[in-house]
Amino acid sequence: MKTNHTHLRLVASCPDHVGILARVAGFIADQGANITAANQYEDVRSKTFFMRYGIELLDTEKSVSAFESAFSSVANELRMDWRLTDLSKKQRVVLLVSKFDHCLAYLLHRWKVGDLNIDIPCVISNHEKLRELVEWYGIPFHYVPVPKEADAKQAAFEKTAELIEQVDPDTIVLARYMQIFPPWLCTKYRHKVINIHHSFLPSFIGAKPYHQADVRGVKLIGATCHYVTEDLDAGPIIEQDVVRVSHSDSIEEMMRLGKDVENTVLARGLRYHLEDRVLVHGNKTILFN
Amino acid sequence: MKTNHTHLRLVASCPDHVGILARVAGFIADQGANITAANQYEDVRSKTFFMRYGIELLDTEKSVSAFESAFSSVANELRMDWRLTDLSKKQRVVLLVSKFDHCLAYLLHRWKVGDLNIDIPCVISNHEKLRELVEWYGIPFHYVPVPKEADAKQAAFEKTAELIEQVDPDTIVLARYMQIFPPWLCTKYRHKVINIHHSFLPSFIGAKPYHQADVRGVKLIGATCHYVTEDLDAGPIIEQDVVRVSHSDSIEEMMRLGKDVENTVLARGLRYHLEDRVLVHGNKTILFN
Amino acid sequence: MKTNHTHLRLVASCPDHVGILARVAGFIADQGANITAANQYEDVRSKTFFMRYGIELLDTEKSVSAFESAFSSVANELRMDWRLTDLSKKQRVVLLVSKFDHCLAYLLHRWKVGDLNIDIPCVISNHEKLRELVEWYGIPFHYVPVPKEADAKQAAFEKTAELIEQVDPDTIVLARYMQIFPPWLCTKYRHKVINIHHSFLPSFIGAKPYHQADVRGVKLIGATCHYVTEDLDAGPIIEQDVVRVSHSDSIEEMMRLGKDVENTVLARGLRYHLEDRVLVHGNKTILFN
Amino acid sequence: MKTNHTHLRLVASCPDHVGILARVAGFIADQGANITAANQYEDVRSKTFFMRYGIELLDTEKSVSAFESAFSSVANELRMDWRLTDLSKKQRVVLLVSKFDHCLAYLLHRWKVGDLNIDIPCVISNHEKLRELVEWYGIPFHYVPVPKEADAKQAAFEKTAELIEQVDPDTIVLARYMQIFPPWLCTKYRHKVINIHHSFLPSFIGAKPYHQADVRGVKLIGATCHYVTEDLDAGPIIEQDVVRVSHSDSIEEMMRLGKDVENTVLARGLRYHLEDRVLVHGNKTILFN
Repeated sequence: MKTNHTHLRLVASCPDHVGILARVAGFIADQGANITAANQYEDVRSKTFFMRYGIELLDTEKSVSAFESAFSSVANELRMDWRLTDLSKKQRVVLLVSKFDHCLAYLLHRWKVGDLNIDIPCVISNHEKLRELVEWYGIPFHYVPVPKEADAKQAAFEKTAELIEQVDPDTIVLARYMQIFPPWLCTKYRHKVINIHHSFLPSFIGAKPYHQADVRGVKLIGATCHYVTEDLDAGPIIEQDVVRVSHSDSIEEMMRLGKDVENTVLARGLRYHLEDRVLVHGNKTILFN
Repeated sequence: MKTNHTHLRLVASCPDHVGILARVAGFIADQGANITAANQYEDVRSKTFFMRYGIELLDTEKSVSAFESAFSSVANELRMDWRLTDLSKKQRVVLLVSKFDHCLAYLLHRWKVGDLNIDIPCVISNHEKLRELVEWYGIPFHYVPVPKEADAKQAAFEKTAELIEQVDPDTIVLARYMQIFPPWLCTKYRHKVINIHHSFLPSFIGAKPYHQADVRGVKLIGATCHYVTEDLDAGPIIEQDVVRVSHSDSIEEMMRLGKDVENTVLARGLRYHLEDRVLVHGNKTILFN
Repeated sequence: MKTNHTHLRLVASCPDHVGILARVAGFIADQGANITAANQYEDVRSKTFFMRYGIELLDTEKSVSAFESAFSSVANELRMDWRLTDLSKKQRVVLLVSKFDHCLAYLLHRWKVGDLNIDIPCVISNHEKLRELVEWYGIPFHYVPVPKEADAKQAAFEKTAELIEQVDPDTIVLARYMQIFPPWLCTKYRHKVINIHHSFLPSFIGAKPYHQADVRGVKLIGATCHYVTEDLDAGPIIEQDVVRVSHSDSIEEMMRLGKDVENTVLARGLRYHLEDRVLVHGNKTILFN
Repeated sequence: MKTNHTHLRLVASCPDHVGILARVAGFIADQGANITAANQYEDVRSKTFFMRYGIELLDTEKSVSAFESAFSSVANELRMDWRLTDLSKKQRVVLLVSKFDHCLAYLLHRWKVGDLNIDIPCVISNHEKLRELVEWYGIPFHYVPVPKEADAKQAAFEKTAELIEQVDPDTIVLARYMQIFPPWLCTKYRHKVINIHHSFLPSFIGAKPYHQADVRGVKLIGATCHYVTEDLDAGPIIEQDVVRVSHSDSIEEMMRLGKDVENTVLARGLRYHLEDRVLVHGNKTILFN
């Protein structure tokens, strides 16, 4: 459906008052641009307005930066938090993994067949195990072991941060990276780091959730895709789902069954994030379908 | 969250072109009204634009009819199909049933406890069986038997139509009314008659879908809420869902399991319809969440 | 499919060793009885064997008690925990409720139309509110208010226990009974008291789970049917399910959506229990489908 | 949990009568063998008995073939259809594919990490496209183009049949093999050929089910894993599932979403088949959980 027109996406939030939509839609029309998609949500408790617009610049003479600087005065007037994304530029997504490869294999395959329209500048792992798989896809693989001792661990994360910084990613995915992301990295990439946790949060926070699920005897297990914050497994939830288990399923079988739900929850959550459908509001997310 | 301000809902569709949103949002702002919710969708194949707006009239001096007549010129200019609903008026919903009472019992209970904010002016049935239940809720019950013989059947539907017309409903729900609604009644109340079919359409159209499901050996059974049209079980689908069955489930057990999914699918579909979330487009529906 | 033959159900567990099945099946065949259904499960960690048999006594001369006493020596030999149920006798189920009526209304309706093949000797509530509904169904209603003050509360539960004892129930259902069941009553009716908790346990234990779900920003809410033990909301889980919610769903809307999932989870859990499909093993359940 | 004892699986069906279970369980106990798992089902309409037993031969002196020949006289006596599987031997599974690679990539990955305990002697395709992927996993890849002209198509299927016969598989999986399997091959490998169809059958039989789903405007799309018979997409169903779609999902997006449900449905169906949990009864399946 795309033409050679420039397509942008505007995501914004601001204090709610009369006329926001008219002001923004009027500005866009005045720029000779078309609104191709629109979502709004008004949080009545905090009196905050959230919006996501698809915009098509019809005037091929007009540059994205001209549109952006023109819009910034509207945004100031409305006291908006906002960002504008140029859809012609692929997002850059760095993947961090440990030894479990199902999420990595899933994302790489979907990327290769064109279902995930991103660039993957590199994969970073604290193990060598998945190098072969990653390099088969032609993607650089960096091995950065993470020792348990505090200073060495700090050094490892500094090395990891350096590798991330070099490729300047839009998004970082912890695709079963079994390390606690340090607070200073969470802060640096706020709302840009996505984790897949292998339980239906807030049940079974922390290590070995399938073992915890086995002890409690739950009838459904799940997975949760969320933004990483300083609080372990407590960041804003993007997507969740569950799958039925039986008393006869061992922990190993739960782990096998869990792989499918982890994959689909991460895939959906990542896609929502990449399409700017997820707006963080306090510790919750607005999710525009 | 409601104030004593007037709340309206605007639903519209029109040929897609630049500036629709700006035109409508600008008009609403000019009227001193607030947009409390907004959904838009652009169907790229048919180049049609669909919208649903929640509107709060802040100027208590301004009447709904003044707003409506002012908007009609905007709508003409944009070649819109549209309707405006005053949310202070409860919708009137007539229920038609036969002998199975689970959908009826569900809707009446939810209505009584305030989960369904509607008026139910009457229930019409081709059997006497459910009179006691309906009258316990203080709702008029009309018994109109539908004979098989053509002339008598036509007379029965004329009587039914007359009873419906007397209460001037906004919506008619066939809550397991095991009669084929005559084409002239479908036409008269186009996109206002909602049926719950006890299968996952288009599988198992027509009579005895649980028997058909048993013969085919499906592993999931379902229910479909759709608008009634001249084509049996082929109208625009509003909502569907499924439930797992086992080889050991008899047809009777499927019917029992099916009741829950019929109830929840009908309840969701009816709510979407009442909240003006369902816009019909050809034989499909746009469903705004 | 039932004949005038006597139908029994045998549920048993015992230490695992060779030949249990042969011993039990041989005994049943020797009694001239037919096995109409059979489930077995071997828990390899605890080396425990669990079984559930449907049995049809073909010899109409033979009494249930004769069969039972003959089997008891087999059971002793195999060191079995066991019970034998005569399916010709309806189970007696007492319902306890507070003010929320959706679970009660659901169970009463399903009971009346024959979907729940039980007797309901009485309903006990700490509020008067639901008397009219219960009495419409012709079921005795007992009002036992539960004060907050310790002695009065103890007296209220003694009164409740007395009312329960008078009707000698097989099962007690806490159908949204918003009181913590006292430990001595849990002990007295061990694995006979079923609760429906309005969250996906172990998330959101205790009061106001929908409020907790709102604070955490989960994308699915759920319900859990479990046996009541001395530990609040921590007893063996029988059944669970979830339903999707959106950022735009208020707590009130979550509560409304939750009603459907509470009803279906309680209905499934209660049915599994009544059909002797649930065998408690430590703090978990074996669930035979 | 496995020891060095021999583990077998017995699957059987026979006319229902008293004492089958006692006869079989007694035989197994007499052989000094243990029953580690057991499922039975009695189809009351056809008076047919179905069973699946896990058996552990404790006497290490006793051979599988001795057990098998001893059992055959019991089986004759009970007029059983039966098969006995030695669990120490991996099943051999041939995969047939066309151009879509998601099911293939999924199965190969799960096989490589040990989640699918099978041998894959070869992959056969009517296109060259997926050779590189298959050979990366070290599995032989055969390219057999299938022309449209009848004689050439017949020759292609004869070549395919020859390649299959050479590796003598236990199971053949059509993992999105977009060709109609010829009736003589269906007959030859009756109940050994598994297909994944990309719709919730019986909806959308035949070609382009996602296009059909788009035309009908369904709110859920699905996938069905079934045994291949002479009747297109009408063989006994093993497993099905669905995923929600929206009016805004294009056919391309449905295809992308459908990949996940196709993969998990095929994975579950294949696992049920490999674990002998699926017993065909007429055109339906008994599925032992």
